[in-house]
Amino acid sequence: MITITILGSGNVAHHLILNLLKQNSVSLQQVYARDTSSLKEIVPPEKLTQNIATLKPASIFIIAVSDNAISEICNALPVSNQLVVHVSGTAPIDSIGVKQRSGVFYMLQTFSKEKIMDFSKIPFCIEASTEKDLKTLENLARLFSEKIYFIHSEQRKNIHLAAVFVSNFTNHMYTIGAEICKTQKISFDILKPLIIETANKIEFLNPKDAQTGPAIRGDSKTIQNHLEMLQQDKTKRELYSLITNSIQNKK
Amino acid sequence: MITITILGSGNVAHHLILNLLKQNSVSLQQVYARDTSSLKEIVPPEKLTQNIATLKPASIFIIAVSDNAISEICNALPVSNQLVVHVSGTAPIDSIGVKQRSGVFYMLQTFSKEKIMDFSKIPFCIEASTEKDLKTLENLARLFSEKIYFIHSEQRKNIHLAAVFVSNFTNHMYTIGAEICKTQKISFDILKPLIIETANKIEFLNPKDAQTGPAIRGDSKTIQNHLEMLQQDKTKRELYSLITNSIQNKK
Repeated sequence: MITITILGSGNVAHHLILNLLKQNSVSLQQVYARDTSSLKEIVPPEKLTQNIATLKPASIFIIAVSDNAISEICNALPVSNQLVVHVSGTAPIDSIGVKQRSGVFYMLQTFSKEKIMDFSKIPFCIEASTEKDLKTLENLARLFSEKIYFIHSEQRKNIHLAAVFVSNFTNHMYTIGAEICKTQKISFDILKPLIIETANKIEFLNPKDAQTGPAIRGDSKTIQNHLEMLQQDKTKRELYSLITNSIQNKK
Repeated sequence: MITITILGSGNVAHHLILNLLKQNSVSLQQVYARDTSSLKEIVPPEKLTQNIATLKPASIFIIAVSDNAISEICNALPVSNQLVVHVSGTAPIDSIGVKQRSGVFYMLQTFSKEKIMDFSKIPFCIEASTEKDLKTLENLARLFSEKIYFIHSEQRKNIHLAAVFVSNFTNHMYTIGAEICKTQKISFDILKPLIIETANKIEFLNPKDAQTGPAIRGDSKTIQNHLEMLQQDKTKRELYSLITNSIQNKK
């Protein structure tokens, strides 16, 4: 039986634990976190610890903490020559350190604690320092999803950057849309079908071909009107201008 | 029987015609376009004309042309005191002119000819100069959708601006994501589940609360890394900086 120990208590750790607990062929061995309060409802108490020194050997240690805490956690592990992986989009594989067998188990998705996550649709980007460990990670990932990608650290860094654009920055566009609706006392609901359709279109068209709107049409009158409407909001105005120019440069 | 005449041959006209032809309680009377070639496959030849002077009276004339052509089309109509509406997000209702009874029939969605559109999920934003005409437009919209919004021209202008952010600008973020993947020879497919999930989240969380990523976390090391990765691409680098700052200003 594959035994898994999770280190961390954030969104990724939270969803990973919930999904591991559903599996019959792997066992959640221990969970370590500095602050275990958010985990008490989902992890059996005997498996939960705030003392990293009590961790026993496991088939896979998954470190799901912020990038800058990975090294510190690795140094504090009381075991050696274990398969230790992190889940970061940006940290290189060697941030695990030489005391362990290193790997990466990056789930390319946006996690919120409030929302249940269907793991079967998540692309798993895996990397390991040996073929055997890569196979172990692949077997674990396949329990959850069919979308397994063998991705090295340089590619992963770029995927993460792309993810910031298509997810974090996109969500910020939604925030701006919601703010504009609010000024007119219109429910944000009115924009939701458009948001969903814009996302769904990527299954049918590549995004460059799917581009619509005043920028790609070269509709300078509408662009001018919009810039005037944003006169009181310097940041939105600058964003509008820069993104419009960027769209027009791709024509 | 409500009779509808459509003027235009673009994406909106195309989808509107297809959906009108499915209805039993309204009749597509005529379709006018300067260039009818793209309409020949969907409109019966006896209903299609390139000569605006041949248009007969109808219950509703729907002008689905670019904003700057609305006035010209209205002036050329050989009938008067008809209910004439445009489908623009930005043009005011009075761009229809005084010779007709004016209205607006704005469908808040992004249309591509290549993709079939489910009208039942489209918010219809309607406006008319009389109560009776508003009711006529409402009845027409209700054939397609339950999402009817009574929206005046000032609100509509703002909704359109919000739509540019949440749809056109969001799609541009997808284009940038696709470009970054391409440089690493990774399929854009890897980003699709993330794009869909980011959009679906708006049904559960308001976008401000759903914000994740290095900007909102204040993860300056990752932000710095990303800016260095974009050193060769001035536009992407500026976009990254500006959107990151904008996210951080909302904290």
